[in-house]
Amino acid sequence: MLDEKVLKEYNPYLEVKDGELYLEGVSLKSLAQEFGTPLYVYSASYIRDRIKAYKEAFSGALICYAVKANFNPEVIRVAGEEGAGADIVSGGELLAALKGGIDPAKIVYAGVGKTVPELELAVEKEILMFNVESRDELYVLDEIAGRLGKKARIAIRVNPDVDPKTHPYISTGMKKSKFGVNFETAKEEYRLARELKNLEIVGIHCHIGSQLLDVSPYREAVEKVVGLYRELTEEGFEIRYLDIGGGLGIKYKPEDRGPSPHELAKEVLPLLEGVEAQLILEPGRSITGNAGLLISQVQFLKDKEIKHFIIVDAGMNDLVRPAIYDAYHHVVPVESKGREHIIADIVGPICETGDFLARDRRIEWLERGDYIAVLSAGAYGFAMASHYNVRPRPAEVLIENGSYRLIRKRESYEYILNTI
Amino acid sequence: MLDEKVLKEYNPYLEVKDGELYLEGVSLKSLAQEFGTPLYVYSASYIRDRIKAYKEAFSGALICYAVKANFNPEVIRVAGEEGAGADIVSGGELLAALKGGIDPAKIVYAGVGKTVPELELAVEKEILMFNVESRDELYVLDEIAGRLGKKARIAIRVNPDVDPKTHPYISTGMKKSKFGVNFETAKEEYRLARELKNLEIVGIHCHIGSQLLDVSPYREAVEKVVGLYRELTEEGFEIRYLDIGGGLGIKYKPEDRGPSPHELAKEVLPLLEGVEAQLILEPGRSITGNAGLLISQVQFLKDKEIKHFIIVDAGMNDLVRPAIYDAYHHVVPVESKGREHIIADIVGPICETGDFLARDRRIEWLERGDYIAVLSAGAYGFAMASHYNVRPRPAEVLIENGSYRLIRKRESYEYILNTI
Ligand SMILES: Cc1ncc(COP(=O)(O)O)c(C=O)c1O
Ligand SMILES: Cc1ncc(COP(=O)(O)O)c(C=O)c1O
Repeated sequence: MLDEKVLKEYNPYLEVKDGELYLEGVSLKSLAQEFGTPLYVYSASYIRDRIKAYKEAFSGALICYAVKANFNPEVIRVAGEEGAGADIVSGGELLAALKGGIDPAKIVYAGVGKTVPELELAVEKEILMFNVESRDELYVLDEIAGRLGKKARIAIRVNPDVDPKTHPYISTGMKKSKFGVNFETAKEEYRLARELKNLEIVGIHCHIGSQLLDVSPYREAVEKVVGLYRELTEEGFEIRYLDIGGGLGIKYKPEDRGPSPHELAKEVLPLLEGVEAQLILEPGRSITGNAGLLISQVQFLKDKEIKHFIIVDAGMNDLVRPAIYDAYHHVVPVESKGREHIIADIVGPICETGDFLARDRRIEWLERGDYIAVLSAGAYGFAMASHYNVRPRPAEVLIENGSYRLIRKRESYEYILNTI
Repeated sequence: MLDEKVLKEYNPYLEVKDGELYLEGVSLKSLAQEFGTPLYVYSASYIRDRIKAYKEAFSGALICYAVKANFNPEVIRVAGEEGAGADIVSGGELLAALKGGIDPAKIVYAGVGKTVPELELAVEKEILMFNVESRDELYVLDEIAGRLGKKARIAIRVNPDVDPKTHPYISTGMKKSKFGVNFETAKEEYRLARELKNLEIVGIHCHIGSQLLDVSPYREAVEKVVGLYRELTEEGFEIRYLDIGGGLGIKYKPEDRGPSPHELAKEVLPLLEGVEAQLILEPGRSITGNAGLLISQVQFLKDKEIKHFIIVDAGMNDLVRPAIYDAYHHVVPVESKGREHIIADIVGPICETGDFLARDRRIEWLERGDYIAVLSAGAYGFAMASHYNVRPRPAEVLIENGSYRLIRKRESYEYILNTI
């Protein structure tokens, strides 16, 4: 069951020693015993490698890590140490990025519903660029910047109407989505923005969707954006940044192949000949997704007439992706004991049938007390966790090169129920 | 747009005065202005009425409010003041129920993945009944009770294999679900439990699913459970409680009709002739669902070529039901200004297309700053809220008879990012 070769395709810092799973040289079983379960663990070296891979593939580009994927400030810090900036979508994410040591001059801010206090905070911090999503936002931002005596640098998020061929919930660049402004009328928004004296037009932004396993939709989007760039430049706009968003897919299923930043670069860079603007990318999932695992302990086994159930202590409150996106997460035992394999549902303790981690999955027979590892859980894992069923959210541990530290303590019941 | 007649079918304490929405005599607009948005508001009188309706329909029964629907201790307290006990599914819910003033002697505890610390806590508190979901749980509970010098009262949760005809995620009584033990072999578990000397067998438990708009599946389930009751009684078991779970559906769409407790009683009570055991019910959604509304403020309007979007400040982190269950929630303006009606998507500020509250909905044209009310949000609303996009969860306000109080303050960014 613990096939090191397959595991290393998820994260090269995974190893199997004496049938036990290690990450960056640290035994996951020992972490589970020390910190309890459910437990998120992240590999810092993997995060560093991914930022480096983006920087190598896109030399001179600014890599803004999309904080929404995993907002733990210590995770953000690791990305920042490799030179990454941050892509944010809320005031809270701005604070998370700052806490993670990101320089505001490397922060870009998208989002269809930015509130006045959020915009004020970002204007005060003088972030690199607001990725504006509607005409009204232009007026609101101009008013705020003026009031605070600042200039706000902006890009307009255009909607290139490209089908990213991913889950409909995370397709964001199609005409029928709420994001961005229509491609055809984008120039009008730019002209309007030029009239607003507290705004400084500096970029173009687009983001077509998430978990793209095929890079070809980027070509179509970037071609359109570059076309717009040329038109705007001709009209005298000084476009300094071309922000093409995030979205690169990662391996969830053993048969998936997440494209590398290099493959994305090969598709995109040739389109940028003669473009003077700096490229910005906003990868989230492809930075932290396979850096992380969710460790959980088997509570009960149920051998029902038509199905085996492995009931673990992590539920949909800890990792909601299976319930929301019907997402596949690969699950392996933390320690292989060479037992027979069965087909089972791996489910959590929550009171609904939607609470599953894996369904009809071939896995080694497990016993009460054994640990499992849910792979590819470093992005949109903890970030979407809830207190459903009054369950405290998991602790988080960051591993680097044989050592580790707690980067979020397990929540207490007191906090959850401390209402006033 | 504000059709008082329709609104009162959701919650009779809703009123329209001068085109403005009131709940229990309190202006929702004034609450939004005082506490900010997004804001959950709950009507205490409605909760009281629902508990009373259950008690009247099922005289002598114990109504255990299913805390999972809304775990705010002050909401639980209101139910408790009307005589309700609590149905819990975790240690955290036990603490919530106790904080809400519920007597442990009125608490029942189901859940497929109860952990040792959770079971210990519940044994120590001497709750009314553990609804045991597997054979292994019997052994574990017996060991814990013995170690703590207590007897644990138990029911076995049987799986009547009835199709509740609801969303598959909340169908819990079918053979292929993880819940309960197979109906056919349940007697074996009872015989086994009888051998475990720290357990006291006192009941039978079943729960077939949630949001049942048709009560007929209850008949099938209760018939089976009563059959088991008779067989067990003949074998000398003393079954004191028949717990038939929760699940009564509520009105979400204007055309829905949530069956009343009385209708459920008419279906179920005739089957209980000659049954000496006390009936237990575990309603959650039908107690708090239509007690609550989520108030949100319009941030931006977008008039895209093929669609109107009303972007509000509540997102899928605040109310995840539309994203997870594709659930319908009725949305109305908090103040009708007699504007023209449009067809629009009402969406949140979160970075994915799955972040919507309502799609293709006919609603009065709104403007930036206007408030909307999302109906039927009192159950599985706040209870499933997350910090996705580093968004603080909403505040909660409880209204009763013209007065109101904050029962959960808005979260601070500090807490979300305070990791250690
Ligand atoms: C504007 C924007 N940028 C970047 C991302 C990150 O996407 P991913 O995690 O797929 O790289 C998202 C995801 O929703 C986004 O909306
Ligand atoms: C065992 C049990 N009882 C009661 C309930 C409450 O259901 P409802 O809120 O539909 O009444 C649930 C819901 O999941 C449950 O699992």
